[in-house]
Amino acid sequence: MPSEFDLIRRFFTRLPRHALLGVGDDGALLAPTAGCELVVSADMLVEGTHFLPDTDPEALGWKTLAVNLSDIAAMGALPRWALLAAVLPAPARCVPAGTFDWLEAFARGFFACATAFDVDLVGGDTTRGPRAFCVTILGEAPAGQALRRSGAQPGDSIWVSGRPGRAALGLAHLQGRVVLAEPQLSACLAALHRPQPRVALGLALRGLAHAAIDVSDGLLADLGHILDASGCAAHLSIPGLPPPGIERDCFLAGGDDYELVFTAPAEVDDEVMRLGQTLPLALTRIGEIVTGAAGSFILQDAEAQAIVVTRCGFDHFQN
Amino acid sequence: MPSEFDLIRRFFTRLPRHALLGVGDDGALLAPTAGCELVVSADMLVEGTHFLPDTDPEALGWKTLAVNLSDIAAMGALPRWALLAAVLPAPARCVPAGTFDWLEAFARGFFACATAFDVDLVGGDTTRGPRAFCVTILGEAPAGQALRRSGAQPGDSIWVSGRPGRAALGLAHLQGRVVLAEPQLSACLAALHRPQPRVALGLALRGLAHAAIDVSDGLLADLGHILDASGCAAHLSIPGLPPPGIERDCFLAGGDDYELVFTAPAEVDDEVMRLGQTLPLALTRIGEIVTGAAGSFILQDAEAQAIVVTRCGFDHFQN
Repeated sequence: MPSEFDLIRRFFTRLPRHALLGVGDDGALLAPTAGCELVVSADMLVEGTHFLPDTDPEALGWKTLAVNLSDIAAMGALPRWALLAAVLPAPARCVPAGTFDWLEAFARGFFACATAFDVDLVGGDTTRGPRAFCVTILGEAPAGQALRRSGAQPGDSIWVSGRPGRAALGLAHLQGRVVLAEPQLSACLAALHRPQPRVALGLALRGLAHAAIDVSDGLLADLGHILDASGCAAHLSIPGLPPPGIERDCFLAGGDDYELVFTAPAEVDDEVMRLGQTLPLALTRIGEIVTGAAGSFILQDAEAQAIVVTRCGFDHFQN
Repeated sequence: MPSEFDLIRRFFTRLPRHALLGVGDDGALLAPTAGCELVVSADMLVEGTHFLPDTDPEALGWKTLAVNLSDIAAMGALPRWALLAAVLPAPARCVPAGTFDWLEAFARGFFACATAFDVDLVGGDTTRGPRAFCVTILGEAPAGQALRRSGAQPGDSIWVSGRPGRAALGLAHLQGRVVLAEPQLSACLAALHRPQPRVALGLALRGLAHAAIDVSDGLLADLGHILDASGCAAHLSIPGLPPPGIERDCFLAGGDDYELVFTAPAEVDDEVMRLGQTLPLALTRIGEIVTGAAGSFILQDAEAQAIVVTRCGFDHFQN
């Protein structure tokens, strides 16, 4: 049976492109870019909480890195380095080969994402226990230019990228709570299994947006974090808001999409629209920042009637 | 019941001293020191593998950070920032208060260590599942000065700090496999529960040592990593090597001590001895680097008889 070190070498060691020293010492050695600040974030994915035991390991490998890249994107930074700590169950004695297939597929998905976004895996840890993964991601942004949650100002337009709620809708379909037809089904399953971190958008928003966050807990919950941090309120009027029902719930409160919500001065509305065409990526203006009780919403539906909004998102310790 | 965000705020938010932005955004924002390289490492501690369910949470909080500081120490870097991703079980419905007591004690131990070594907690994640902690640690070293495993050269003296094996011996006592008397018992339990990362030693070894590693898997196993990476062998003659038995086994192969093993040119033997007196910290010369099959050992006992050595360490996927 191969040792821990064999496993790491076999599946998780690739020559780093941007590191002085990668996997294999007590720490990785990195040369930060002069004039840049570091953006650092860590996320844990736990079996049973974030993914199911029968999740396709290759898709999971992609997603494990992608959700972390999304945090770097939301800060307007360029992702550069990642560390992966993996907790893996002991292989069943009768099917040891299967475990390594699983790990190999996971590594394939993880590195597909790393290659697509030019990120080096520079370190980590492997240990035995209930399956879980912790990724630390490091990115860089020119000093003073990173996007924060706290910069939203009254008068800002509020924008969202892509179509939030697709991942939650795809999950609802898999759980039999809704039946989706093509092509919506494929789009929703892709959003669930292969989220695309909006790195290019985040970089383009530097100097343009006042505040940004990624949608991991749900559109309203994450916009709420911007409002809390910025001390203001939002008046929402969302084009194409689905009628009341599961699709609206997913749009407003479904997590796991990793789109970006951001605010930018109304004067640059046209510039944001053009950016959407350039990327290309759907960017939808969903409302504006207003003065008011910090963190509060008014949401108008298609008939211009104000409707009540609860900030339902996903909170691991409330569910 | 408090939410995830309440818990994080209550126990894990302290104003960072060295960060532009700490906990509370998509990522932390750090200003690297000009002319320095970054050292980054991540380690996972899993209940049942690295600690027992009844472990004192305050000691565990200390140790969770300390073992990561040890990696930075082994690279000769100054630890500066940490991230903590915590997986915590759902509280039993009948004793919800206990969970928060546990978490509060863990945070107390974690921050005691962070304060002792002037490290900022700048981010992390909290999620529900089988208890585990993943710490990412970031440190800095002047460009080109970090210590690596690969720099050992024939003729180097091999040194170890402190007294390896104490943690393993303390664990053996707790498990009833040996009975220790005072004052050895207290020293061994302290090594097990409150390991002291050798940060000051690591910093002092810059420009002095050729190679360094921390003893997390066992003295011989970790020295073996230096030998493998440096392509050389070792001739060991260890002052005060215990006679064959559990104490010798713990000394040679017990992990979890977080002492440093390092090699330095024989010409600076006196300087290393003086360093030990200055710190103060026991530094013992245990042999020398020789040419030979990469990774191989010769160990001489007190009667100058060569004895066979197996590189038994701790490998999570071999046990």
